[in-house]
Amino acid sequence: MFEQLGLIGCGLMGGSFALALKRAGLVKRVVGYSKSPSTTERARQLGVIDVEAPSALLAVSGADIVLIAVPVSATEATLKAIKPMVTPQMLIMDVGSTKSDVLDAARRALREQIGSFVPAHPIAGKERAGVEYADADLYTGCPLILTPTERTLTTQLQQAQDIWTALGCKVMQMSPEAHDAAFAAVSHLPHLLAFALMNSVQNQAQGEQFLALAGPGFRDFTRIAASDTKVWRDILMANRTELLAQSQLFQAELKAFEDLMRAGNPQALEIMIEQASVARAQWQMTQLPKPC
Amino acid sequence: MFEQLGLIGCGLMGGSFALALKRAGLVKRVVGYSKSPSTTERARQLGVIDVEAPSALLAVSGADIVLIAVPVSATEATLKAIKPMVTPQMLIMDVGSTKSDVLDAARRALREQIGSFVPAHPIAGKERAGVEYADADLYTGCPLILTPTERTLTTQLQQAQDIWTALGCKVMQMSPEAHDAAFAAVSHLPHLLAFALMNSVQNQAQGEQFLALAGPGFRDFTRIAASDTKVWRDILMANRTELLAQSQLFQAELKAFEDLMRAGNPQALEIMIEQASVARAQWQMTQLPKPC
Repeated sequence: MFEQLGLIGCGLMGGSFALALKRAGLVKRVVGYSKSPSTTERARQLGVIDVEAPSALLAVSGADIVLIAVPVSATEATLKAIKPMVTPQMLIMDVGSTKSDVLDAARRALREQIGSFVPAHPIAGKERAGVEYADADLYTGCPLILTPTERTLTTQLQQAQDIWTALGCKVMQMSPEAHDAAFAAVSHLPHLLAFALMNSVQNQAQGEQFLALAGPGFRDFTRIAASDTKVWRDILMANRTELLAQSQLFQAELKAFEDLMRAGNPQALEIMIEQASVARAQWQMTQLPKPC
Repeated sequence: MFEQLGLIGCGLMGGSFALALKRAGLVKRVVGYSKSPSTTERARQLGVIDVEAPSALLAVSGADIVLIAVPVSATEATLKAIKPMVTPQMLIMDVGSTKSDVLDAARRALREQIGSFVPAHPIAGKERAGVEYADADLYTGCPLILTPTERTLTTQLQQAQDIWTALGCKVMQMSPEAHDAAFAAVSHLPHLLAFALMNSVQNQAQGEQFLALAGPGFRDFTRIAASDTKVWRDILMANRTELLAQSQLFQAELKAFEDLMRAGNPQALEIMIEQASVARAQWQMTQLPKPC
């Protein structure tokens, strides 16, 4: 049980955490701060936070648990701003989609206090952003990944594990590097490919006619291309090392398909399509008990 | 009104056409043939066809309308087999997803009778194949593309236009080349990319762990990777010229994204993501009144 949550970033992710924590009876008070004062005010009106703070630093003052729910590129500045109020007993977490860059930022910003910071990535979200969509059930049933380092304090790590478990998450631990490689492969690269496909089609002279003929396969394949621009700019930049590595592996695979098409080898092509088709069909059967 | 439909290939596509044509009162009799005798028999038991033919040639005997609904790689052999029964008054159509290769096959197989052949591509389908899933409503509300050439007879072209319109399709005409370029861009390339991504992920040492972390974005992006292996082997091979050209355009676009990530230019990256995101959001609003 915590006394006070200091919430920096009262949007969909942060607001949902506050609501879930309160509903679970795990916190008494939520003090919130958002860069936009109207967001902070709206969060209070909606009952997502109890008290509006005029700065990140003041939101953290007196808190025993802190959640940073800002775009990943703002993590370092946020942590620097709250550093004077960070105590050795405090649990600080984030919800960013990339972890190596967040840890680098945290090391620079928090220095000797880095042990209080437990990097977290809940695999959850909605098509719509904003505190209006905050939902106490957003995280229920979803995977959550913690990426502690050798400097992370045992007490804080255990608290983080307990909190997310209490909110209904399936909690996993990975190294930041393994996390970033995995999400480069199964999330960031698909987004990059969907962005590139949309632009490749629309930048052709006949692009508009082509798009008018697109069907349900195209609809599903490109759905993620409509994602939030700034969030994905930050993710592609923050995780570019792993993402570029995954893109190289992907392009080598694509070239293998193309080589078989050029060589006129339908037998070998069929084997490669079969491998993809079987893997996808199997994955569908074992994953995602509920959409997160 | 036609007397007799000769149906070659009594699967989902062919069977649905027969059911729709009968329900619309456009044909009196359906004589069907499938390579597998058990399929032909099942089609008759289900009332999809009225009479089983022991060969493609005999299915066409006495027909005034013929539908070829076989994998595109079997088109030439099928047309060669029925050539002796083709008459100048007959309307012959296919339902293949690629058109230049089908027309090449038709020219070689039908020669002086090529004018009777009207290449057709209904943008419709189901996740499941087979005559058991044949559905008189499969084509209702779906786009249908005809790709006539200068040798296509006017009477047959008009009949084709009228039939598909009567079945509820939005009928369009394009050149075979324009058709294949469009579908390379919005259908065949997304399939190729989804196949390549699945294999790229699963062929890595940690592929299984990565896949266990994949979420709803990955699910939708890779859905088409589970498509039928032989159908897509044929499509990738048949349309490889246009597909390889589209893949080159795509890879140039992907490289432009990567160059900005490497150069550390988030501003320019944001503009490119924005272009993709806006285009996808707009497309979603104007297309697909019903799923086809």
